[in-house]
Amino acid sequence: MEIKPQSPRNHITLLNCLQPCLRLLFKCELLQKTGSFKIRGALNAVRSLVEERQRTGRELPRAVVTHSSGNHGQALACAAQAEGIPAYIVVPRTAPQCKQDAIRAYGATLVPCDPSDKSRAETASSVVQETGGVLVHPNQELAVIAGQGTIALEVLEQAPQVNAVVVPVGGGGMVAGIAVAIKALRPDVKVFAAEPSNVDDCYQSKVRGELTPNLHPRDTIADAVKTSIGPNTWPIIRDLVDDVLTVSEEEIKRATWLVWERMKLLIEPTAGVGLAAVLSEQFQAVPQDVQNVCIVLCGGNVDLRSLSWLTDLSGKAE
Amino acid sequence: MEIKPQSPRNHITLLNCLQPCLRLLFKCELLQKTGSFKIRGALNAVRSLVEERQRTGRELPRAVVTHSSGNHGQALACAAQAEGIPAYIVVPRTAPQCKQDAIRAYGATLVPCDPSDKSRAETASSVVQETGGVLVHPNQELAVIAGQGTIALEVLEQAPQVNAVVVPVGGGGMVAGIAVAIKALRPDVKVFAAEPSNVDDCYQSKVRGELTPNLHPRDTIADAVKTSIGPNTWPIIRDLVDDVLTVSEEEIKRATWLVWERMKLLIEPTAGVGLAAVLSEQFQAVPQDVQNVCIVLCGGNVDLRSLSWLTDLSGKAE
Repeated sequence: MEIKPQSPRNHITLLNCLQPCLRLLFKCELLQKTGSFKIRGALNAVRSLVEERQRTGRELPRAVVTHSSGNHGQALACAAQAEGIPAYIVVPRTAPQCKQDAIRAYGATLVPCDPSDKSRAETASSVVQETGGVLVHPNQELAVIAGQGTIALEVLEQAPQVNAVVVPVGGGGMVAGIAVAIKALRPDVKVFAAEPSNVDDCYQSKVRGELTPNLHPRDTIADAVKTSIGPNTWPIIRDLVDDVLTVSEEEIKRATWLVWERMKLLIEPTAGVGLAAVLSEQFQAVPQDVQNVCIVLCGGNVDLRSLSWLTDLSGKAE
Repeated sequence: MEIKPQSPRNHITLLNCLQPCLRLLFKCELLQKTGSFKIRGALNAVRSLVEERQRTGRELPRAVVTHSSGNHGQALACAAQAEGIPAYIVVPRTAPQCKQDAIRAYGATLVPCDPSDKSRAETASSVVQETGGVLVHPNQELAVIAGQGTIALEVLEQAPQVNAVVVPVGGGGMVAGIAVAIKALRPDVKVFAAEPSNVDDCYQSKVRGELTPNLHPRDTIADAVKTSIGPNTWPIIRDLVDDVLTVSEEEIKRATWLVWERMKLLIEPTAGVGLAAVLSEQFQAVPQDVQNVCIVLCGGNVDLRSLSWLTDLSGKAE
């Protein structure tokens, strides 16, 4: 049989040849409420707030506030609704309509801002002041990081044979939470972060030994990990994450394609970053005794309006 | 809130308003090996052949043969490979390359034919003669129908609270197998067939009380149910299927979209036919005590090469 190393189909063949003993497990966070793992951190943050206020006899927070055009915005809106707390989500005016709709559907108030980090932060800050609310940062908030760590607790329970966990990294909340849980309970299990080469601040930080944010991040199809790791996630990543694997845009697309075609799971491209890392040549440097690898498929919030006949349908549906 | 009845999002709202007690369960056959329920029938047919030959002390079949450009072709190839029997799949020259690749990947021999029913049947017949093989018809073969019926056994075990099962119908093998099992074990459970209006031979047959194939089937996005029911499936459908619900192309697309967007499952449009029927107005005529409805998501073999950036990727990958 002719080998076509460019074909997604043959990536599997290639993988089987090179690493015959590798067994891949997938943690399907795309099937979570709100379509991503973010609901874990958001729920933990909101519930922690409520419990702390109740314990200290204070009033419930008057609101929760965040800035996010993506999965955390939906998740916080959903978690706040579940606890009966108003949510204000600062969203760039350029965010896709479908994401704005989803946040609104969870009963949150959308606050538009300009599409810049500065405008986001300033707008969120003024919303906090106006509403007397509490800011819940998408990835540097400790309760959020702890919430994401529950992924690891479930993986260890569901697949105790696991030798390594591979986690896409953006702000680092998920990989930090997972690393804390894994290294506390099963330090023999490797934790790998997987990152697009186009936004490789986590990789650069590990190489240099100091927090090195992307000052000018390039574009990536893995839009949910475009953000940089921060002051709370960096020390955890520095000390507890075994390695950072970087992948090209092409590799991310191929891995996403493979999951769609073979697993029939509609992951978002960001969730393809982990599989891309495992299919890449770098992964052959991983020790031979790493045989059972759990890849976190972090979310499934794909903008379907960019896809062929679905786009035509969408045009009519709006 | 403004109601936009054209929006997929509001279909759910609408449904919740109209049928507040309806609970939908989904049987995820898209996650089967080969990407559809067809592996059930194919495995049962091939294993039945092997057992029968062993019982009667005869040689194993020299080959199995079928004509199918789609899911049954893959399934029979896979089942034959598992039993170590050669498979010959007659495939129209116009069939998508990805489906031909998949059949070939299961070790089967592809036999090209012209894209007409006559050419398919004649080619299959001559392959049977040349190879001394056994023809396994995609939906009229009794062992295939019985195999598909195992879906119902699992549904009754996994969801004993079920009041109705909704099944897309093409050749009718799946709905016939399910109806036989359901009506034998739980005659109180309704069995509904769901069919595109564009190829409504099952509906017409039930209305007229006689087998009425589509002589000139129109096109449908639900390509896997374009075929007509036949002499073996018709009597079962006539006697055991409670009703046939027909849906428009627009309804099929919207239902498929909804499953992609909300459930993150990459069903093929044919698998959207069942949900489309449940979301359609016709379903309001279903008795109020039908509360737990199981919809069979029959397959997930979508041609990704027709979708946006994936298409660009594919061009390079070929």
